[in-house]
Amino acid sequence: MSEVETPSAANRSPINTSRSVIIVAGGVGQRMGASIPKQFLPLAGRPLLMHTITQFVRYDATLFIVVALPAAHIDRWQRLCDEYRFATPHRIVAGGDSRAASVRNALSRLPDTDFIAVHDGVRPLTPVDVIARCFATAARYGSAVPVVPVTDSLRKQTADDSYDIPRDGIVTVQTPQVFRADRLRDAYARTADNTAAFTDDASVVQTAGYDITLTEGSRENIKITTPADLPVADALLYLRNR
Amino acid sequence: MSEVETPSAANRSPINTSRSVIIVAGGVGQRMGASIPKQFLPLAGRPLLMHTITQFVRYDATLFIVVALPAAHIDRWQRLCDEYRFATPHRIVAGGDSRAASVRNALSRLPDTDFIAVHDGVRPLTPVDVIARCFATAARYGSAVPVVPVTDSLRKQTADDSYDIPRDGIVTVQTPQVFRADRLRDAYARTADNTAAFTDDASVVQTAGYDITLTEGSRENIKITTPADLPVADALLYLRNR
Repeated sequence: MSEVETPSAANRSPINTSRSVIIVAGGVGQRMGASIPKQFLPLAGRPLLMHTITQFVRYDATLFIVVALPAAHIDRWQRLCDEYRFATPHRIVAGGDSRAASVRNALSRLPDTDFIAVHDGVRPLTPVDVIARCFATAARYGSAVPVVPVTDSLRKQTADDSYDIPRDGIVTVQTPQVFRADRLRDAYARTADNTAAFTDDASVVQTAGYDITLTEGSRENIKITTPADLPVADALLYLRNR
Repeated sequence: MSEVETPSAANRSPINTSRSVIIVAGGVGQRMGASIPKQFLPLAGRPLLMHTITQFVRYDATLFIVVALPAAHIDRWQRLCDEYRFATPHRIVAGGDSRAASVRNALSRLPDTDFIAVHDGVRPLTPVDVIARCFATAARYGSAVPVVPVTDSLRKQTADDSYDIPRDGIVTVQTPQVFRADRLRDAYARTADNTAAFTDDASVVQTAGYDITLTEGSRENIKITTPADLPVADALLYLRNR
């Protein structure tokens, strides 16, 4: 099974395929030290990935949503959707061996679309205004990559030492990263062999020769990569809903 | 006024001068877009800097504490201490034009001490176990610099473009950074002219020729540099106090 249309699609607004989002939820959670894949970890009472999807629906209820999951986790995700009565329509595709391979699989399953966002499944708190700004910036400039300034010092570890890296002008890169669909597709078509080296889509698109436009991200747009991140996410959600 | 002993020192345990901390609270808050200096911004009902100091007292109530504040803010800080009945004894020194100059001023006002921690005043949530680990590591190796791995992609902005920075081996550097006192003093004595270029003390000490030992920091040890950081800090404090 590599592609699934959730059955509740008929209950929602007609989908406008001009904008799409690929949510990459391919990690198997090695870094979390948990037996539960990190995208399924409970956050404020439901799996993390449901929060992630919900933020995009809050931005635009007609957005076309594709979720790339490891093939081994698709059945489990569908059971979770039933259990939690999670009715937001989304297409599920099997992830690949790398992040880039997952995006490539998802691209092959997208309808014709004008703008494509690619988002980390483990960023469940992305503010709606960040999503809106990224789509608006991409509509104007062809791409949008949300960033926040680095405020800590940076250091590079070597085998037996470490050295300071000047942080001037260095930003941390978040998602969603939004691109004109033709550019994102072209970039992935032209970087087939070495995509494992890319940690984000901006790098793939830029390597293909396209300009990248940076826009303002948010400190609240945290990525859940260790168990220590979960309480922070929980508390932020609690404070938002208070 | 460049040095002040808070009057309540007599109420506390005898101060053990073998370990000291310099808390650098020199920022005037330009980046915050706030009229309140960021170290005085309210967090869970009291000025941020009081949380910062309190974490060190929780680690060791006999620690010798020096706070470097801009000269223009010292009166205001003392009024805040009165208003909030903040009775933790600490010595106040005037900060300099740069972070390094503030540390240098503070060093000149410290008693004889074996180990000196230097800490950002705007890190109000440093877990006590991180402080303890840093002092213990420095006691063994001569220095301790808390770091956490970078999990977001990194990008460097140039005048009209930006490019991806491989994040392999890159860590973000936190505080407290703890050093054998003789090494920290020697490093500052030998780098008098160019200290404005250093964003942390590890760089100053390493440039003077001493080894730097890295130790594990914490994701919760956030630095408050923009208003957007305050909700995250509030969320963490809420969790801790729950």
